[in-house]
Amino acid sequence: MLPQIRNGSVNKLDETLLTRLPPFSLLDRPQIRTILDQATSRRYDEGSTVFGEGMAADRFYLLLDGTIRVVRTTPTGEQIIALHIGPGQLFGIAPALARDTYPATAVAAAECVTLSWPVRLWGDFVASYPGFATESNRTLGARLGEMQNRITELATQQVEQRVAACLLRMVNQSGRKVATGIEISFPITRQNISEMTGTTLHTVSRLLSAWEREGIVESTRRRIVVTAPHRLVVLSGPAGQV
Amino acid sequence: MLPQIRNGSVNKLDETLLTRLPPFSLLDRPQIRTILDQATSRRYDEGSTVFGEGMAADRFYLLLDGTIRVVRTTPTGEQIIALHIGPGQLFGIAPALARDTYPATAVAAAECVTLSWPVRLWGDFVASYPGFATESNRTLGARLGEMQNRITELATQQVEQRVAACLLRMVNQSGRKVATGIEISFPITRQNISEMTGTTLHTVSRLLSAWEREGIVESTRRRIVVTAPHRLVVLSGPAGQV
Repeated sequence: MLPQIRNGSVNKLDETLLTRLPPFSLLDRPQIRTILDQATSRRYDEGSTVFGEGMAADRFYLLLDGTIRVVRTTPTGEQIIALHIGPGQLFGIAPALARDTYPATAVAAAECVTLSWPVRLWGDFVASYPGFATESNRTLGARLGEMQNRITELATQQVEQRVAACLLRMVNQSGRKVATGIEISFPITRQNISEMTGTTLHTVSRLLSAWEREGIVESTRRRIVVTAPHRLVVLSGPAGQV
Repeated sequence: MLPQIRNGSVNKLDETLLTRLPPFSLLDRPQIRTILDQATSRRYDEGSTVFGEGMAADRFYLLLDGTIRVVRTTPTGEQIIALHIGPGQLFGIAPALARDTYPATAVAAAECVTLSWPVRLWGDFVASYPGFATESNRTLGARLGEMQNRITELATQQVEQRVAACLLRMVNQSGRKVATGIEISFPITRQNISEMTGTTLHTVSRLLSAWEREGIVESTRRRIVVTAPHRLVVLSGPAGQV
């Protein structure tokens, strides 16, 4: 776990904050010091927007703590949650896609702490810091893979399988052990799950209630604990095991 | 249109083949000569596989002519068509995603001609050739954007809208004018459309038959002409106009 930084002034940040993160793991301390000296740190309350879809991509980000929800809005105003991003990951890396606007909106799904840098430094980072380019490529590869999995799920799976796979994905990405099972570590509503799985709020509620009766999950309005992950794996169908 | 190369030995290829393509447009002729001297050219019959999902990514590709269909297969054997790639585009660029295997299968949707290079040259290309890295990033950005659009469509649109949007996308990417309208330039079956839109063959057939009666499309087993594109735009719904 990363240290809890709440109101970190950047020059007080310890270099060890970055040395364990893949994009920076090959660098020496003076290099990391330079990177931190150029960074801005910021705390975001749950629900606040880090950047919006279509906005000029003037900074790129590293998530130190919390969870970022990547959201797109359709022309008719429906929201789609494309993915969740956890601590230690780069995001808003529009320059890696040769874009000058952000392709989606980033919202703090829980309280978040970020570092960010002006986009003009991207080229310097790629050219000067060994492993940084590879790691940003790896991030894109992982996101692309996740999107392909989502497309496959949406195109071939039944709603029940999709909702089960969605819960499993969040448990794998950011589950924490609690007394009764594994809790998804950020607030998650039934509405959020419907926006992740392309189904209705009604269907999500019906499924979660059924699974609750069967002892597979426990849920409150904003929290979900998976109490029988192996049964969710079965429900997610063969494609859930890709 | 690119020249029709059928059995091109690489050292006979003209430099002008590449000078007009974005990844190479900033280079001088000696640089392009070096790149061509390192390339292997190959023709693929319609339906043949260029590389398979999960195979070691030992080469990266440039499509000179034809259309590449990017396919994933689910654990239960269902095929999903993720996207189509047209002439002049890089594909199989696993190193740009820091992957050592191909994330999907590439099939020749029509007769194709490719150039390819051993993956060990990727780093050289990125480091030595101005614009090459930016252009490969732009390719990734476009693919990621397309995938986000697909996820949005699958999650929020009705089947009729999805099929209409799918036809429009192919018309925009690779339509050619014919007497009665715009023809999708590569062979496309109803099964292919069902694999692109996550619906059944039966539904695709029903929709195409209805649209044929209404004078919106004309289709044979492997060819589709859109005779009234403006009506397809309406059918694709507001999200089709993203």
